[in-house]
Amino acid sequence: MNGTIADYGEQEILKLLQGFCPPDLIGDDGAVLGLESLAVGSQLVITTDVLVDGVHFSEATTPAAAVGWRAMAANLSDLAAMGADPLGITVGLALPPTCPLAWVLDLYGGMLRCFSHIPEGELFRGIVGGDLCRSSVPTIAITAFGVTAPGYILQRRGLQAGDQLVVTGCHGASRAGLAVLLGEIPRELGVTPAIDPTAIQTAIQTWIQAHQYPKPRLDVLPVLRSLQDPLNPQRSLGGMDSSDGLADAVLQLCRASGVGAWLDWDHLPLPPGLVEGVGEAKAVEWCLYGGEDFELVLGLPPDGVAEFLERVPGACWIGEVIEEPTVTLRDSQFPERSQLLCLESGFQHFR
Amino acid sequence: MNGTIADYGEQEILKLLQGFCPPDLIGDDGAVLGLESLAVGSQLVITTDVLVDGVHFSEATTPAAAVGWRAMAANLSDLAAMGADPLGITVGLALPPTCPLAWVLDLYGGMLRCFSHIPEGELFRGIVGGDLCRSSVPTIAITAFGVTAPGYILQRRGLQAGDQLVVTGCHGASRAGLAVLLGEIPRELGVTPAIDPTAIQTAIQTWIQAHQYPKPRLDVLPVLRSLQDPLNPQRSLGGMDSSDGLADAVLQLCRASGVGAWLDWDHLPLPPGLVEGVGEAKAVEWCLYGGEDFELVLGLPPDGVAEFLERVPGACWIGEVIEEPTVTLRDSQFPERSQLLCLESGFQHFR
Repeated sequence: MNGTIADYGEQEILKLLQGFCPPDLIGDDGAVLGLESLAVGSQLVITTDVLVDGVHFSEATTPAAAVGWRAMAANLSDLAAMGADPLGITVGLALPPTCPLAWVLDLYGGMLRCFSHIPEGELFRGIVGGDLCRSSVPTIAITAFGVTAPGYILQRRGLQAGDQLVVTGCHGASRAGLAVLLGEIPRELGVTPAIDPTAIQTAIQTWIQAHQYPKPRLDVLPVLRSLQDPLNPQRSLGGMDSSDGLADAVLQLCRASGVGAWLDWDHLPLPPGLVEGVGEAKAVEWCLYGGEDFELVLGLPPDGVAEFLERVPGACWIGEVIEEPTVTLRDSQFPERSQLLCLESGFQHFR
Repeated sequence: MNGTIADYGEQEILKLLQGFCPPDLIGDDGAVLGLESLAVGSQLVITTDVLVDGVHFSEATTPAAAVGWRAMAANLSDLAAMGADPLGITVGLALPPTCPLAWVLDLYGGMLRCFSHIPEGELFRGIVGGDLCRSSVPTIAITAFGVTAPGYILQRRGLQAGDQLVVTGCHGASRAGLAVLLGEIPRELGVTPAIDPTAIQTAIQTWIQAHQYPKPRLDVLPVLRSLQDPLNPQRSLGGMDSSDGLADAVLQLCRASGVGAWLDWDHLPLPPGLVEGVGEAKAVEWCLYGGEDFELVLGLPPDGVAEFLERVPGACWIGEVIEEPTVTLRDSQFPERSQLLCLESGFQHFR
């Protein structure tokens, strides 16, 4: 499989890529999926992402398999953020003719390996269709679709004052991994006597892994469903994923729900080793604004928190939802460090 | 609405684009669509396309509204090609910061105007989600999803020997319109005395319209359904759309069905004025290989043809499906012009 995609031509490449898809779904103008196994009252959830070389990924930091994995993880994470089980995926690729065939095959390989994070079930059919065309800028367009179990849906507008904010894992690790890959922080962290060199090396590997191979948190859905009452849809849970950062997620949730929140500085879900490695200020910044950790940020009724934290390893309580529509980071030890969080501090395209 | 998208920023642009979408579906990580109004036995159909500036469209030949219309038409045509009614659309946009905001709004305007070709019904929800990011090459990724009525589906593998091949309209008009827009043929065609100058000017306008604003043939589905027997799914109809050309469609249908076909030279569905305007050789070439006419190419049982042609204005009989797995263009008047058709003559990306 040496050579570029121009050496093979569109039809040949399509044949190779179809090898990654279920054979019964490929070869028509669209993929066909039966809906008969869905429970009555299921809802269809659709989400889509476009990833562009030089903006969302780059050769320097991301091997092709990781590009594929990350693209898939981002979309599966959006389904998880809605409380939906995946049904299938479409993949549109725009690539330069000079793109090595091996890169494309590695990309698809990475996508398929990410499917290992989809809990077993009969619904998911994998990559069910796609498109391939020419472009000077490698671009990947992914659409994921899934279904919610009847009565169980996560929406941004589902927060209520008094809800306890929890996250399914730490935040800032992906940004730290990117920093290591970009050389912004040296791989040789840990030369100061305060830091255990082995621990920091392990941490660095974890950060890189978090950046290149983030896990979509579909595994959390069964736990969430056991906390929800499908007969009381008025009390659907509020939640979303933290693809654009923890602060962004909390702010978006609060805005959509017409509430506010405070986060506890001492309970910021910092990745192990990050404060030691880059200092507290940068660690906190990356935790709040780094993005791409693809964890879920959820508002739970107070009586569900203990069970949730027990059943989801790595999950943390981070704060509380309030009526007053502002989001504050509270530091009870050093009140002068308390601050209002706002959307403008996060990453925006075109600015 | 002057200025570039960089002047407005991602959040502002997203707000403006959300104005094109149903408000109840926007603002979460994914769009949610109820499935309760679907008939039992409905199947989900998904199709996706990526369109790249300079490859699929260009400023020279396509105003933004036409880019949007064509992108939408191509995907709705794929649903029509599967016999599916549209449910919704997602739109992923990758654009340079220098892109004028007016271009983006015109693009969306064109998309929405194309929806006028979706027969009225309760299923279709419009543009239900999307993504917006930065790229040096304007790129549009569209995913359309729809549902088939139970027992009614069009598939490429549905042809049988003895089926009569019909098309829902003429072929080559889109290619001819492109030729006019590119200046390959002069807008001032019709100077020879053999051609009525008014007729040829009307024809040219029709070709340009066919190129810029092709119609997805969803209107044909009710007719097709009335010809199909939902209780006899063994006899599902064979068909697809002619986005990659008429010859390509017939060849793909035959390959998928393990059959062959002959087309009748005298019944090639040529657009009015094309032979007069560009000569027979070019007219036939564009009719067979021009592409992007977005008509349906169908194999019908012989007893359904007359009713189909009567109920679909502009539809034509073009040939017959045979057991022998080759596709021939037959000329009974000049047998030496008869020829085998093959896929390699069509357009391939990367070659």
